[in-house]
Amino acid sequence: MGRKKIRKIPQETIRRMALYLRSLKKLKEQKFQIISSNKITAYLNVSPDQFRKDLSYFGPVGKPGVGYRVNNLIHHLEKILGIDRECRIILVGVGKLGSALLGYPGFLNFNFTIVAAFDSDKEKIGKIIGHVKIYDVSEMAKIVPRLGVQLAILTVPAENAQQVAEKLVSCGIRGILNFAPVNLNLSQTIRVLNVDMATELMTLTYFAKKILAG
Amino acid sequence: MGRKKIRKIPQETIRRMALYLRSLKKLKEQKFQIISSNKITAYLNVSPDQFRKDLSYFGPVGKPGVGYRVNNLIHHLEKILGIDRECRIILVGVGKLGSALLGYPGFLNFNFTIVAAFDSDKEKIGKIIGHVKIYDVSEMAKIVPRLGVQLAILTVPAENAQQVAEKLVSCGIRGILNFAPVNLNLSQTIRVLNVDMATELMTLTYFAKKILAG
Repeated sequence: MGRKKIRKIPQETIRRMALYLRSLKKLKEQKFQIISSNKITAYLNVSPDQFRKDLSYFGPVGKPGVGYRVNNLIHHLEKILGIDRECRIILVGVGKLGSALLGYPGFLNFNFTIVAAFDSDKEKIGKIIGHVKIYDVSEMAKIVPRLGVQLAILTVPAENAQQVAEKLVSCGIRGILNFAPVNLNLSQTIRVLNVDMATELMTLTYFAKKILAG
Repeated sequence: MGRKKIRKIPQETIRRMALYLRSLKKLKEQKFQIISSNKITAYLNVSPDQFRKDLSYFGPVGKPGVGYRVNNLIHHLEKILGIDRECRIILVGVGKLGSALLGYPGFLNFNFTIVAAFDSDKEKIGKIIGHVKIYDVSEMAKIVPRLGVQLAILTVPAENAQQVAEKLVSCGIRGILNFAPVNLNLSQTIRVLNVDMATELMTLTYFAKKILAG
């Protein structure tokens, strides 16, 4: 409504692109150079057809019947996803989940660097977890613009999430990965991606039940 | 291939069903009794049309122009998702992320109960985190069948994930919420849902970039 959609690419397609990239990086480690769509999708619960359909959103790549060059396809996917350069992010809320993410090894492979963390707990401020320094949340307005960061991971308690999110937006943040189990009410120009463990579990329950039933 | 699909409901639809449910529970807390699709989807980045389309997969519910009864719709969604009864789950791997999930308050609202946790670290075995007791992973084959649990959260390091997942399956687990950044290679009858922080971040980066670009 009011906002024109140029081309509508499903979020699930983008999510799968990220999975393809992870799979390809693994195959590269295993020294594969040219690879079939079957091989790429082998452990992803995705059909080769789906893979080709997903890729086709972004124009032609590879030659039919020949397979894909691993390096080329990795580069292609990284460009599409916008991670062909270093992506600097901040994290707000260094509780249990936040601490776990600061030390999360899975980010390294994908050009993501958490450059600063914020919390309001005086005990935590100044400490370093997983190479990331924790700053006072009250300093966000000063530090974030200086860092030139546009993405944030939000791991504060649900009751603080809306307020902190608004503050992040006023500091120049344009995308938020929200782990707080609330729906943030922000300008439509801010992209929010919710990671809700309960939502994931419900999705799993649904599909597991399907399998059990039949 | 070989497996017949009765009706293909997109995973994103199911994920949104879970979000609608969360939204409805919030509205119920706020004492709403009858509600429009606009209100339900207000903070979800989902259009009312999408909401109605998602619901329509599961047969008619509500009357056009009248709105939805909050209680009825909650019950309807819980039944669809399979969480109208208590869902018992186990968690394997009590590292930082696993510990965070044991204490995660977001599960309570949705009938999920983590009934046991497992780890191989002798220091952790016997301890209780967030009301959940930690058992020796070597006891899984004995304990899991007795608990009658079919869903597991997997938060072990990537290098152990495949082996532990196979063990879970042999204990009767049918659905795995996998936080380890690897693709599990299991029987097609086992449902695996991957929650990969890097994948989520890549998805966010893509969409945030879209917004920044115009």
